[in-house]
Amino acid sequence: MSECENCKHKHREGEEYRSLVNRLSRIEGQVRGIKSMIENDGYCTDILVQVSAAQAALSAFAKELLGEHIRTCVAEGIRGGDEAVVDELITTVQKLMR
Amino acid sequence: MSECENCKHKHREGEEYRSLVNRLSRIEGQVRGIKSMIENDGYCTDILVQVSAAQAALSAFAKELLGEHIRTCVAEGIRGGDEAVVDELITTVQKLMR
Amino acid sequence: MSECENCKHKHREGEEYRSLVNRLSRIEGQVRGIKSMIENDGYCTDILVQVSAAQAALSAFAKELLGEHIRTCVAEGIRGGDEAVVDELITTVQKLMR
Amino acid sequence: MSECENCKHKHREGEEYRSLVNRLSRIEGQVRGIKSMIENDGYCTDILVQVSAAQAALSAFAKELLGEHIRTCVAEGIRGGDEAVVDELITTVQKLMR
Repeated sequence: MSECENCKHKHREGEEYRSLVNRLSRIEGQVRGIKSMIENDGYCTDILVQVSAAQAALSAFAKELLGEHIRTCVAEGIRGGDEAVVDELITTVQKLMR
Repeated sequence: MSECENCKHKHREGEEYRSLVNRLSRIEGQVRGIKSMIENDGYCTDILVQVSAAQAALSAFAKELLGEHIRTCVAEGIRGGDEAVVDELITTVQKLMR
Repeated sequence: MSECENCKHKHREGEEYRSLVNRLSRIEGQVRGIKSMIENDGYCTDILVQVSAAQAALSAFAKELLGEHIRTCVAEGIRGGDEAVVDELITTVQKLMR
Repeated sequence: MSECENCKHKHREGEEYRSLVNRLSRIEGQVRGIKSMIENDGYCTDILVQVSAAQAALSAFAKELLGEHIRTCVAEGIRGGDEAVVDELITTVQKLMR
């Protein structure tokens, strides 16, 4: 579907990779926690506060990954003459903007 | 922490309950899918599109639960003279606004 | 179009009114400033930072007005048996959520 | 404060420029309209719907300008070896994300 052959195996190693996976594991735990609050008749307000926290965590994950993507894939793609990477970035960023 | 004794066992039954739990199960699956994309060196753009979909799903869940909360807990609380429910709603809604 | 006859002349007086109008005057100034940056060939990044500030200001205005609306119109409407106010609030809040 | 000397006079010409200025003039009108609703004791719900429309318009403006910025300043900057443009883009995009 999309191509980034020249860079996709170079980034997301070591610390960066672990930070992203840890963020996602925490978000998964938050969503599971929200489900269990629903199942245990938790109070709406408490649940909505947790939803807001999960939204913030998902947004922080997106910011980290997008930052890394721009710094590696996009910058390398443009330097290497890959014009498609520019349009693709614009589309992606617009989806993530408020 | 918070109280809604008079209403918390009356709402979220049947269809409403199942709809909320189903939404959360799907969101949990989306987050797990994103983690597996990271683990399998997926392309950033594809991952970010999935993150945007998970954000939309979490937002739709919040809208449904908050709507139900206002219709039941908040309206009943105000009718029953519980003033705390108003301040609590304002705080919660402001957290969820863009 | 919408009705709130019993409360609309009671709120938004004095300090509250001035605070809302001042917020809007500042936002109007921010938008005019952004337009003049475009007209004077300002740098995109500087302009986008100002857009982000205007978005935050508009969001703070919405939070203040919605809080006041819930505390007055909505609470009074529900106490007075006006059920329409509940559905209207749900629709409005959902529009303003992220 | 920021530099984009090599590109800032090349983009935002003709149609693009007019489109951005027109968007901002409409947003300015929306904000003025909201202020006059406050001054004329307008109903909260009607005002909040207009605030939501102004937020959407400001967001559409940001998307258009950021897209143009990436396509011109950022792509040209990276091709020309200007590394600062990458960090600056990341910071700007993160401010505009939800």
